[in-house]
Formats: sequence, C-alpha cells, structure tokens
Amino acid sequence: MNKQEISNWFKELQDNICKAVEEADGSGKFVEELWEHHAEGGGRTRILQNGSILEKAGVNFSGVGGNLSDGILKALNLSNSNFFATGVSIVMHPKSPLVPIIHMNVRYFETPEEYWFGGGIDLTPHYINESDAKFFHQHLKNTCDNYDLKAYERFKSWADEYFYNKHREETRGIGGIFFDRLNEQRENKSKTEIWKFVQEVGKSFSNIYTHLMLKNSELPYNEQHKHWQSIRRGRYVEFNLVYDKGTKFGFDTGGRTESILMSMPPQAEWVYQFKAEAGSEEEKTLKLLKKGISWL
Amino acid sequence: MNKQEISNWFKELQDNICKAVEEADGSGKFVEELWEHHAEGGGRTRILQNGSILEKAGVNFSGVGGNLSDGILKALNLSNSNFFATGVSIVMHPKSPLVPIIHMNVRYFETPEEYWFGGGIDLTPHYINESDAKFFHQHLKNTCDNYDLKAYERFKSWADEYFYNKHREETRGIGGIFFDRLNEQRENKSKTEIWKFVQEVGKSFSNIYTHLMLKNSELPYNEQHKHWQSIRRGRYVEFNLVYDKGTKFGFDTGGRTESILMSMPPQAEWVYQFKAEAGSEEEKTLKLLKKGISWL
Repeated sequence: MNKQEISNWFKELQDNICKAVEEADGSGKFVEELWEHHAEGGGRTRILQNGSILEKAGVNFSGVGGNLSDGILKALNLSNSNFFATGVSIVMHPKSPLVPIIHMNVRYFETPEEYWFGGGIDLTPHYINESDAKFFHQHLKNTCDNYDLKAYERFKSWADEYFYNKHREETRGIGGIFFDRLNEQRENKSKTEIWKFVQEVGKSFSNIYTHLMLKNSELPYNEQHKHWQSIRRGRYVEFNLVYDKGTKFGFDTGGRTESILMSMPPQAEWVYQFKAEAGSEEEKTLKLLKKGISWL
Repeated sequence: MNKQEISNWFKELQDNICKAVEEADGSGKFVEELWEHHAEGGGRTRILQNGSILEKAGVNFSGVGGNLSDGILKALNLSNSNFFATGVSIVMHPKSPLVPIIHMNVRYFETPEEYWFGGGIDLTPHYINESDAKFFHQHLKNTCDNYDLKAYERFKSWADEYFYNKHREETRGIGGIFFDRLNEQRENKSKTEIWKFVQEVGKSFSNIYTHLMLKNSELPYNEQHKHWQSIRRGRYVEFNLVYDKGTKFGFDTGGRTESILMSMPPQAEWVYQFKAEAGSEEEKTLKLLKKGISWL
C-alpha cells in the first residue's frame, strides 16, 4: 500500500468513528473544518461540543508534507528533510467525571529514505474503575495478540513510559498501548502485517469507547466529583503541553494550532497542594497512577 | 555582595511584597510552606488563595544548589556543573477580569566560573487598558533609565520576544521588561550597579501592582468578561508549560513541582476556534497582543 491508500483509509476511519460516537452520544454532532497545510496537504478537523455525554471531542484526520527543520531531523535521526505524514488523532473529554477521557492516534510517516507506523490508545479515567480498566486492556491485548504474542507487553510498557507526567510522578491514566517507528526492519514483519495491525488498533476505538460511554454516563455524581475532574483535566493539560510529542511536532512543523490543541479539555483547575482525603476514591485513583500495573 | 547577601535580600523582598499585597487585597493572607531541595538549599513558597481581589497569588523565594545535568550545561553553554541559584518569582491571578495578571522574577545564578543576574516583569491584562499599559511601561522605563538610558528599549524588546506564544502568534500580554545573564563582562557595569538595578526592579513590583489592583478591582463585570478571562488564562497556561524557561529549568533540576506550578491560574477554559466579535473589547485586546508596540 502507498501513502495515498493509507491516507484514504484513515479518512474512512475518521468517518466511521465519528458516526459511531455520534450515535452513542445521542445528540452531539461533529462540526467539520477543512484546512490546508502551508507546504503540502491539509486536514479535516471534526469537533463535537456540548453533546449529551461528550463535552468536547475531536477526531482529526491530517495528511501533510513538506520539509523538516534541522532540529526535527536531528531529533528523529533522519537525513532527508522531505516528509509526508498522515493519521487520525482523537481526544474525547466527557461531561461526567465517571466516564474516562480517551486518546487514540494512528499514523504513518515517510521520507524518501524510510517509512514507519506509530500510534496508540490510552485511557484517562478521573476515577479508576478496575473492571473498566480490565475491559480496556483486554481489548488491546486481543488486538495485539493477533499481530504478535509479545506485542501487548512491549506496547503496554511503552505506553507506561510515554504517558507519564514526570514532574508529578504520575502516569496520565491507566495507560494502554503506544508504539512508534514500526517498519519491516525493526519489526521483522512485512509492511502489510504492520499496516493491518495499525488498522485493527484504529478499528478497536469505537467498540472500546462507546461501551465505556454508555456503561458509565448515567451514573450519578456530585460537585466533589466535578471538582476532581477539573483537577485531573489540569494534569491532562500538563502532559499535552509539556511532554506530548505530537503537540511538539505539530507546533514545530507549523501545524494548525486549533487542531493540535483540540486535545485541551473544555476547562481545567489548578489548586495549590491539593490533598486527596485518606481513604477516598480520589486517593485510591492516585495510588493507581503508577507505571507497571498489570490490569489483566 | 556574595550569594548569601543576595539571597538574604531576596527573602526581605518576599516579605515586603507579601505585606504590601495583603494590605491592598484587604482579606487574603499568604500561607507559607518551607521546602528543601534534594541537593542543597530550599525555598519559602507563599500562596494566597481566595482573597478579596486576588483569586490565586504566589510569591516564592528559593535558594538552591547542586549539579546541573549535561542537557542544561549544554543549553546554558557552561562547563562547570556546580551551581547556586536564588531568586523571587511572582505570579498573581486576580478574580476580576478587569485586573491584569502580573508576573515578576528577579534572580541570581552562579557557578565557580561565572555569575549572572536575570529577571523581568510583565503584565497580562485580560482586557488591555491603554492608560494602565502606559502607567506600567512608564514605571519600568524610569527604573531602567536609572540604570542605563538604553536599558528600557533593550529589555522591552527582549520581553516582547520572550513572552510570546509562537503557536498563537500572540504576545502573552503587553510585555514589560526581560533580561538574562547580566554580568560585568556583558553589561560593562560593575556587579554592584547591576545588583542595584535588579533590586530596583524587585522594589518596583508593589508600587505597580497595588496601584493596578486598587484602581480596577471595583469595576463591574459580567459573565462574558469572566468567560474571556478563562480563555486568556488558558493562553497563560500554554505559555508557561510550552515556553517558559523557569518552568523548564525547575522541572529539569528536580525543583518542587507545586512551587513551580503556582503560576497556573486557578482555572482556565479552552474553546475550539473562539472568535472575538467584530468591534468588541475582546477583539480590541487581541489586536494589541503584538510585538513592538510602543506603549509610552
């Protein structure tokens, strides 16, 4: 498959996910904006705001090309600056603090010298529910097992390392899978096999998230839960602006700021030295924001 | 003057500023926490929350030492890793959208090889009032003129460059002054003269900000103003987490996260593709968030 076929498939994935999510939400509708990249290509940003379940959700497709700056070339250890990158990026912030935030990205990158696939899915519950965590990780493990029996462990550890707020000594949420620079040489698999895996990851999104939306969105919550959600959203902001490589890559390559920052929550709070009460649900969640937990 | 004398003076400055700000606020009180750095020294973090005028304000003193990582050595172009850094950092987020956010930092840094002073003050009005902007810049110009007649222009341009959200093509606010790595060699002034200037910058804070607090805090505002304030606070978060060198230096040297992030606003909002209404006060402010404006 070439970059055009990959790019077209990502567009279809965006269509399918938007449809499934709108159906689960019940009232929210994605609004689309088309944009062009200053060098080559562009994207379709789709944002849903103020739905029944989702407060703010973005499902973005982009396919852009151009020349990488010297800084990025060095960071990626590449010599040829000509690039093409395409993918789908998703972040969803639900209204209810009892529905988790989710993020997914699947992407393809190529230069005249090499190509690779990357991506991942991770879940950020405001309150960790262990049976939801197990459901989520089991789904990812099944997807990984179809590709390679060692993949889940590798990509799960990679997510634990990647989705980490070092300055807080906290993981962003319960992790998931993360992978980058997968190609024939590194994976000892054909391009077709790797692409199939990336497609399976993309297709798993709707099944996973619509289940978590519908299961949890009717549960009652109070002001204390909302306050905690705002604080956790603040941590999400910290991760995305301090560590996220997609945000950095987007800014560095002159990407569309409003599309890149669709990942920001609708609102967030910062409380100096917030302390969760001993024995509370908030404290229980904090204790589980660690690397290396086996959720299965 | 040696590092101990400088450090002691910064502690006094912290005391004086907290006193002046509490007096102007009328009801808010700073709460102090002492902390120790993992290597050497520590700090006094003072936070005021939910005052009459100020929603969240931090006035931090720190004096820390240790060894710099290779990454920082390279970034600062230094060869000796042993360092001592001391200073006062301030960020104040008022309740009213008609009172500006303010930031000030004065600092001293030394290694066995060299020393330098740095710092600055910048103002971030949610709504730009040109007479307040003029008052602010005039005060800074007077302080600079006593040091060097070319200083205001230099340090004002430096602030325009530094306090800039590149991905938004917006300055953070109306700028102010910013300076770094001032020492005898670079400034062609004695250490005593440079130190006197840094002290004058520090001492100017209370006069400037208590005036702006008292002048504007009683002005009426509505929900639309508050919403805009939340959006502007989001931009403040973006600057501090993406570009601010103090935040980065703090994280990289294992500083105290809650003290570093006292600069975060109490809350913030992100609205996808927010458009200010044509002819509105919000649009007028946006048009003034540019580099190179002469406010005097």
